[in-house]
Amino acid sequence: MNPVLVLGAGPAGLSAASELAGLGAPTLLVEKETYLGGNPKRWHYSLLAPDLRPAEEILGPLIERVEHHPQIELHVGSQVSSAEIAGNGYRISLRSKEGVQTREVAAVVLATGFDHFDSRRKFEYGYGHFPDVVDFKELEGMIHDDRVLRPSDGKAPGRIAWVLCVGSRDIQIGNPWCCRMGCVVSIKQAVEIRQKHPEIQAYIYYMDIRTYGLWEDLYWKSMQDYGVKFIRGRIGAISMAEGGRRLIATGEDTILSRPTEVPFDMIVLASGMEPGTGTKEASDLFHVPVGPEGFLTPKLSDMNTIDSGLPGIFLAGAATGPKAIPDAITEGMGAALRAFQYARG
Amino acid sequence: MNPVLVLGAGPAGLSAASELAGLGAPTLLVEKETYLGGNPKRWHYSLLAPDLRPAEEILGPLIERVEHHPQIELHVGSQVSSAEIAGNGYRISLRSKEGVQTREVAAVVLATGFDHFDSRRKFEYGYGHFPDVVDFKELEGMIHDDRVLRPSDGKAPGRIAWVLCVGSRDIQIGNPWCCRMGCVVSIKQAVEIRQKHPEIQAYIYYMDIRTYGLWEDLYWKSMQDYGVKFIRGRIGAISMAEGGRRLIATGEDTILSRPTEVPFDMIVLASGMEPGTGTKEASDLFHVPVGPEGFLTPKLSDMNTIDSGLPGIFLAGAATGPKAIPDAITEGMGAALRAFQYARG
Repeated sequence: MNPVLVLGAGPAGLSAASELAGLGAPTLLVEKETYLGGNPKRWHYSLLAPDLRPAEEILGPLIERVEHHPQIELHVGSQVSSAEIAGNGYRISLRSKEGVQTREVAAVVLATGFDHFDSRRKFEYGYGHFPDVVDFKELEGMIHDDRVLRPSDGKAPGRIAWVLCVGSRDIQIGNPWCCRMGCVVSIKQAVEIRQKHPEIQAYIYYMDIRTYGLWEDLYWKSMQDYGVKFIRGRIGAISMAEGGRRLIATGEDTILSRPTEVPFDMIVLASGMEPGTGTKEASDLFHVPVGPEGFLTPKLSDMNTIDSGLPGIFLAGAATGPKAIPDAITEGMGAALRAFQYARG
Repeated sequence: MNPVLVLGAGPAGLSAASELAGLGAPTLLVEKETYLGGNPKRWHYSLLAPDLRPAEEILGPLIERVEHHPQIELHVGSQVSSAEIAGNGYRISLRSKEGVQTREVAAVVLATGFDHFDSRRKFEYGYGHFPDVVDFKELEGMIHDDRVLRPSDGKAPGRIAWVLCVGSRDIQIGNPWCCRMGCVVSIKQAVEIRQKHPEIQAYIYYMDIRTYGLWEDLYWKSMQDYGVKFIRGRIGAISMAEGGRRLIATGEDTILSRPTEVPFDMIVLASGMEPGTGTKEASDLFHVPVGPEGFLTPKLSDMNTIDSGLPGIFLAGAATGPKAIPDAITEGMGAALRAFQYARG
């Protein structure tokens, strides 16, 4: 049997490759970056929802399984540069530092993931300009290293604010969709920080708190047990005061119906999800259409998000839209099942 | 090979059974009700998210596949009344009208689904007492039959209000969790009604609008294209006026910070999700623990929601928490994969 191609080695792609190998299918896992684990690895995510365990503890065994499985041929720092139909499968060109090789694959799983919104595009927040305005993916790294300090002077911040929906639910930016995880991750970060550093005050500016499903528990605990404060309103701009020692968040409290100007030591932008850089390339290579948001479009005939409707092409994870990690991993299983069935004919 | 037992024939169980059969595994599908399709079938759901196609169109082929697949042995109106470990699998008693039979199964998929919250428990809303206070699952049936009429007098309502989070995010009731789909389904219903009956006015009372992921689009369209009105606030009570011809919703508009008393012709309660009646029984039979909310608890070691951590027992759909239909169907695929791998040894 020709191998199954899995494109992307984030949670969804790792899951798909691991399950395909478990089913006995030879698997070609191709990742353009030089590491496995996608965004959780890249940004040193600290605790992973839904059970708030360290990312290494959860993704580590999956990564190790994929690295050492005899049925998995791993190509990091590699890209698929062309694809054409060949028999019931595809003939692809695989480009790496070593050169280009041609391979035949029996089926394809596209798990091209997401990128965090580039917060510099929201220029009124001063990200990239004011050092103490950080992105929540960077705060993940700080929490992971237990060094939650103001970048400007290395001092412990007294008051931190989270600004939700940065580059999400924002029609002006062109990203009308909800990132689905920004509320939960921000609340989790505020709780993590308040647990270790109860002297730091935590404020979360929100439009709607979206702790769907069983997440509500974390939201309640964050208020009742950890004293996280929630302010309903959208921050319009962030500026500097006190000669750069303080940040001022200007906005409107939509419950009190009044404008607010509040000083903070550090402001964290909860940047949304955009389609991964490889998603457009995958769409071009394999002719899977993208929707207006730029995510791959599943066929949905049976209302699963796995089938592309094209022969031998299956989809998993944030390639088709914002996803939580457990959902991405479950979708990897579904894509493995479908690709296996297709490949064995 | 002994068959794999799938318990529950809603979207997740149908998906699991269909995929197991597709993999070549003999499958025993057991459903306590006398029909296939779970809640979507029971309550005559009209259009199914995410692409708003008729439920029959989407679930019909899946039901037909399961009914006619030679590898699937179907038991409706049946229950598993006991289970014990036997070899690597389980020995179960299967009880139906015809009597009790003993069977050996190689693996088990628990897809016991959810029940809608019983709105009568929220007595201050008068459901079951005022005929024109209806539950949103009943409205689904009305929309499906194109008969959106006041139950009290059969007349077309002029003004309808939806009350979100009925039996959800409600600590007093003992249901702190978010039902995950109430916002989306209510918005969808308001749009469906405004499309066909633009003379009916639609108001939605909400705490937070949770149109996560790519749903935001529907929320925007409902306001801009269909004139659905959103009021942020919780309704405290529903009473009757004008000798029973009008309902009064009493609450607080939390954006305007003022109490409101608004008359409506019909009020729709968006009742949340509770664990299915078979979930507790399944937990007792197969020793899968339930969490504080009463849903089955996945092990989450690899952060998938499928593995129970118990040998040969796998979980899918709303048995483990509120789920959207596409997620339930994808989880059915994941559970089929895992059960197949376990059963073949």
